[in-house]
Amino acid sequence: MSFKLTVLGCSSATPTLFRHSSAQILNVNERLFLIDCGEGAQMQMRRFKIKFQRIDHIFISHLHGDHYLGLVGFLFTLHLLGRKKELHIYADERLKDILDLQFNASETTLLYPLIYHEISDNEPAIIYEDDQISVQTIPLLHRIPTYGFLFKEIPRKRKIKNDILEKLSIPIQEYEKIKSGSDFLDVSTGKIYKNEELTINPPEPLSFAYCSDTGYSESYLPLINKVDLLYHEATFMHDKISHAREKYHCTSIDAANIALKASAAKLLIGHFSARYDDLTPLLEEAQSVFKNTLLAEEGLTYEI
Amino acid sequence: MSFKLTVLGCSSATPTLFRHSSAQILNVNERLFLIDCGEGAQMQMRRFKIKFQRIDHIFISHLHGDHYLGLVGFLFTLHLLGRKKELHIYADERLKDILDLQFNASETTLLYPLIYHEISDNEPAIIYEDDQISVQTIPLLHRIPTYGFLFKEIPRKRKIKNDILEKLSIPIQEYEKIKSGSDFLDVSTGKIYKNEELTINPPEPLSFAYCSDTGYSESYLPLINKVDLLYHEATFMHDKISHAREKYHCTSIDAANIALKASAAKLLIGHFSARYDDLTPLLEEAQSVFKNTLLAEEGLTYEI
Repeated sequence: MSFKLTVLGCSSATPTLFRHSSAQILNVNERLFLIDCGEGAQMQMRRFKIKFQRIDHIFISHLHGDHYLGLVGFLFTLHLLGRKKELHIYADERLKDILDLQFNASETTLLYPLIYHEISDNEPAIIYEDDQISVQTIPLLHRIPTYGFLFKEIPRKRKIKNDILEKLSIPIQEYEKIKSGSDFLDVSTGKIYKNEELTINPPEPLSFAYCSDTGYSESYLPLINKVDLLYHEATFMHDKISHAREKYHCTSIDAANIALKASAAKLLIGHFSARYDDLTPLLEEAQSVFKNTLLAEEGLTYEI
Repeated sequence: MSFKLTVLGCSSATPTLFRHSSAQILNVNERLFLIDCGEGAQMQMRRFKIKFQRIDHIFISHLHGDHYLGLVGFLFTLHLLGRKKELHIYADERLKDILDLQFNASETTLLYPLIYHEISDNEPAIIYEDDQISVQTIPLLHRIPTYGFLFKEIPRKRKIKNDILEKLSIPIQEYEKIKSGSDFLDVSTGKIYKNEELTINPPEPLSFAYCSDTGYSESYLPLINKVDLLYHEATFMHDKISHAREKYHCTSIDAANIALKASAAKLLIGHFSARYDDLTPLLEEAQSVFKNTLLAEEGLTYEI
């Protein structure tokens, strides 16, 4: 199974010459999920050869400009390129008004159905699910309603021990039930074979959590417990902690503490303030608390 | 006097890997005027070292996304960088709603006054004037209300012939009247010196016309007659003329014909369809009709 993340933008509030506003592509077996869509995201997708017509679901964390201003241009581009397939957007309900006003002003009727899914609850909620993955909201602590997203593989079926099933002459039509966890009753002998004898555990479901933007909060630790990859904002170095608190943002140490307390496997920090040209000090600061920390770099893909 | 144009974006509807959506900076003696503001314009300004806090007036031709989607991000950036100075926007009135909705959604109150000037008239109108320049609308032919802009130097005062004024012992306090065209009456002799004897013509006022987007129309020829630099859209090669007509756009030959009929000094073509990687054929086609044609290239500055 492929489960990997490509960073399109890692800048906070204002883009810089070298860093774009927030946007990421999660690739789940070539199904692409767009997470936030800052200005210029569509050009970043072209630059990094993202097959963007494969995106069917877009998740917008909140309505600060650096997280969604590239969306309407991207939607226009999909339209102009002739998209017909449904596209789903998960966001604050006011995004619909913002987009509709702009479609109306340009007298554009999109060629494809755009389906809005409002996020408004303060409680974590499953907002998307298919046969491979589920997406749950992570309510964050910010100046306006803001949600992170937890992408979690659907637990896979158990792996059958082929040699044993063949030896026991178990009919092929029973395999699916066994993969799902059933025991097997051999009707000719009356013997029951426990599922554990016939199968092995599937790999643990992988998970990715996107947490941007947020002040320091431990409220969402249970949700992201043991996440495989935690993307967490680290807007500032820790010497700017009072500024970070005031602006509902985190420092690199905050992000590392969250990763540590959540027992995350890996931490990816991003949403860097434009004041930092060199990001190494942010990385080193986070690594001093949580060793397995990586820097979000535009165009890089991170395996989960 | 400095009067020059920097192209930030020259792509039509969709940006490409190498071309951004429409945006230009007109520099009139270091007063900067922003004309259209497609997605990514603020990053282009950084790339080309435009001192963007010097922009006090922004002109938006129409509400198709490729002409204004970079505006709200740019306005946020000015705010975040602490701008306090007034900023004026000249555009379709619905732009105010589009911006206000986004300021409200992000709970942003701009630190600087944003002053809207609605453009809505079908007749050409002077929408801006200072001591150096005037800006007049050029109603264009497009799918939605669209305006070009004619930037014209205010005619400068006549140049006095210093040696003659000194010889005639004309008092310094009379100089301004003479520069403005008055004759001079020598009260001691009763002799009148005609202004032509005392002054020479100032340089002709320079002008720049921005015409994007538009179908082929000769209706605005009188407005742009003898313009020094005509920026005109040339979205397609001439073999796509029927497509151009249908979409209310022009071909390179159309643009060249307009320049020729307007007796423009120079033509700058832009707003190129994403289908063209190499723009040389568009240039050559235009030059076959109007020799003094240039290609709009991002980051290049054109003296007017």
